[in-house]
Amino acid sequence: MSTGNMRWQVCTQRPVAYDVIKAPGLFQPDNHSLLALGRRHGGRRFVVVDAHVARLHGDAIHAWFAHHQIDAHIETIHGGEAQKNLEVYQHLLCALDRFPIHRRDEPLIAIGGGVLTDIVGFVAASYRRGVPHIKVPTTLMGYIDAALGIKAGINFNGNKNRLGSFEPPLAVFLDASFLASLPQRHLLNGVCEIIKLAIIGDARLFERLETYGAASIATRFAHAPGEAILDHAVGSMLAELAPNLYEEELARKVDFGHTFSYGLETRHPHRLLHGEAVLLDILVSVLIAEHRGLLSAHETTRIFTLIQQLGIEPDLGVLDAEVMWQSLLDRIEHRNGLQRVPMPAGLGQCVFANDITRQELDAVLPALHNRMKEHHESALER
Amino acid sequence: MSTGNMRWQVCTQRPVAYDVIKAPGLFQPDNHSLLALGRRHGGRRFVVVDAHVARLHGDAIHAWFAHHQIDAHIETIHGGEAQKNLEVYQHLLCALDRFPIHRRDEPLIAIGGGVLTDIVGFVAASYRRGVPHIKVPTTLMGYIDAALGIKAGINFNGNKNRLGSFEPPLAVFLDASFLASLPQRHLLNGVCEIIKLAIIGDARLFERLETYGAASIATRFAHAPGEAILDHAVGSMLAELAPNLYEEELARKVDFGHTFSYGLETRHPHRLLHGEAVLLDILVSVLIAEHRGLLSAHETTRIFTLIQQLGIEPDLGVLDAEVMWQSLLDRIEHRNGLQRVPMPAGLGQCVFANDITRQELDAVLPALHNRMKEHHESALER
Repeated sequence: MSTGNMRWQVCTQRPVAYDVIKAPGLFQPDNHSLLALGRRHGGRRFVVVDAHVARLHGDAIHAWFAHHQIDAHIETIHGGEAQKNLEVYQHLLCALDRFPIHRRDEPLIAIGGGVLTDIVGFVAASYRRGVPHIKVPTTLMGYIDAALGIKAGINFNGNKNRLGSFEPPLAVFLDASFLASLPQRHLLNGVCEIIKLAIIGDARLFERLETYGAASIATRFAHAPGEAILDHAVGSMLAELAPNLYEEELARKVDFGHTFSYGLETRHPHRLLHGEAVLLDILVSVLIAEHRGLLSAHETTRIFTLIQQLGIEPDLGVLDAEVMWQSLLDRIEHRNGLQRVPMPAGLGQCVFANDITRQELDAVLPALHNRMKEHHESALER
Repeated sequence: MSTGNMRWQVCTQRPVAYDVIKAPGLFQPDNHSLLALGRRHGGRRFVVVDAHVARLHGDAIHAWFAHHQIDAHIETIHGGEAQKNLEVYQHLLCALDRFPIHRRDEPLIAIGGGVLTDIVGFVAASYRRGVPHIKVPTTLMGYIDAALGIKAGINFNGNKNRLGSFEPPLAVFLDASFLASLPQRHLLNGVCEIIKLAIIGDARLFERLETYGAASIATRFAHAPGEAILDHAVGSMLAELAPNLYEEELARKVDFGHTFSYGLETRHPHRLLHGEAVLLDILVSVLIAEHRGLLSAHETTRIFTLIQQLGIEPDLGVLDAEVMWQSLLDRIEHRNGLQRVPMPAGLGQCVFANDITRQELDAVLPALHNRMKEHHESALER
């Protein structure tokens, strides 16, 4: 702090550091990974577990804490976009008030998908102005996307992620064995974000998906090429996120697929998973990019072929030009006055558009319907 | 970010910088101070004003924005501890949703006391994961304490400041002319925090209060010695806050008076102002310190004499050993397992106690009642 005649200046840096750690078999009794962080002897942990995960792995999680003599309170909540609300947030805060923890050395532990780690991250950010937390993603979406960064939050007043914060975790533990019991639809949900990353920034990852994607999905990423795709996707995502954790730069490659999808998800919280909405946005953006000459016909075809080959069937029924346009308008406020829509410019390359028109959007929706129909028919013929 | 075999490391620094700026006559038409921050042409501002301030200065504030052609939405809320709740927080968020602002260059502006700037700070921290905000304190408590730092939040589930965040403002503008219309009780409320700062860390400030305190209160800090006390208090507070903005160090001098007061305030939100509760805690702590030999009888007497001389009459009726003890126990969680109670060790010096007992607290309450009675009687005799 320095002092002038009429002003005082406050100036500092807040250090941010966390590790994303591969930890297979995290809750096997002899796995010590989670013990490295926080007070052990006499320590307490407030643990939030997804209800579906708790049914399958709850006993193992309970047993792990008991085995290591940590006094854990396990709170179970349901996943799903509709749960990402103020009521669930308050419910967790009240449960936390009933199970007092130290402010600094007894981290919250979030075990679940992206919705759950987002909510718990915001609880951690705001409880006593911030207590530490650890994320353990159990879905593919969490593993390669939601749990890796520092964005936390809940939906509010009809708007997705309207409340939240940038809250670095103490650590993220990646245990791919959770993917074995993940429902197929949720597996594909995560694959959509890998596709996003590949198209907008990583041509090598796209090729890997073309070659090993279908087999990786079939084996739930448990074979070597599948694990390599996970490692590649995590590394590629972190390379995008890490230099811009607090979004000082508002033109972000990783926002590809996150412009029109925002409104679609808000409109259909029970019908669309996040990755499904993102994929619809991607396909719309890809056709706009092709129309603008940013993608060749061949590249566009490779994208549509990959989707089909991976067994993903986009829910075109939700497409609605007005909802998507309003979504873009809100994103303009969020991106501080410009559209800043990431568009592929060749596979694996990105440019930002600030001039997408309503007419362009209106024209592309019937084109997408036709395109999917064609692909479907050509697949039937093969 | 660096990559290992089994882990990725994310590591960065988040820069924090803001100015605390003396800006007398902030809303006089030709004052340009507020124009320096944020988008001006076509810009919008969401402004939250304390209802009492709005009655007295609302026209001037409206006129200032109109004069500078800024499209301002002025939202009025009531001050007071009982307002610092989730309902008011949500009310502001919904109002903000109805008045869309850019995420980065249209800062929220909070004009009011500590409760108001705390709530608006938390709104700013959590809306879209953080939008910028400017604080304009209109109370003495805000001017020399609440508005200077980065703590924001609301009460929740019966606990003071249970939800919140550390949210640096874009700037703080100090306009002492607001103090002219501040009710006397609120003026003394702020004086209690100046006394706190003086006892625990600044003997020179204590002497200034002894010499010029009463006259400064009488002139509402508008004469030169009063302005010097304000400058001194602001500088002294910022010197404590700035090196430890995020409370990495949990043993904080400025927590003097904030151990037992926490429970008293929670119990009596309509009866006690924050500074009044803090002063009760200070007096209890001073007597414990005297009993422990940390303060001499002379120093203790100087403190009680100053209180009286400044016209402050502590509301001893709220003292309750059980409430205060529970408050200390909660602070132990908050201070991560240790009491860390700041205690004066000589005027202007601080040590931290971790061994205060219930017996000590029980003994000191009747002693405080007696002490105040004695001082009152000796004053009558003079």
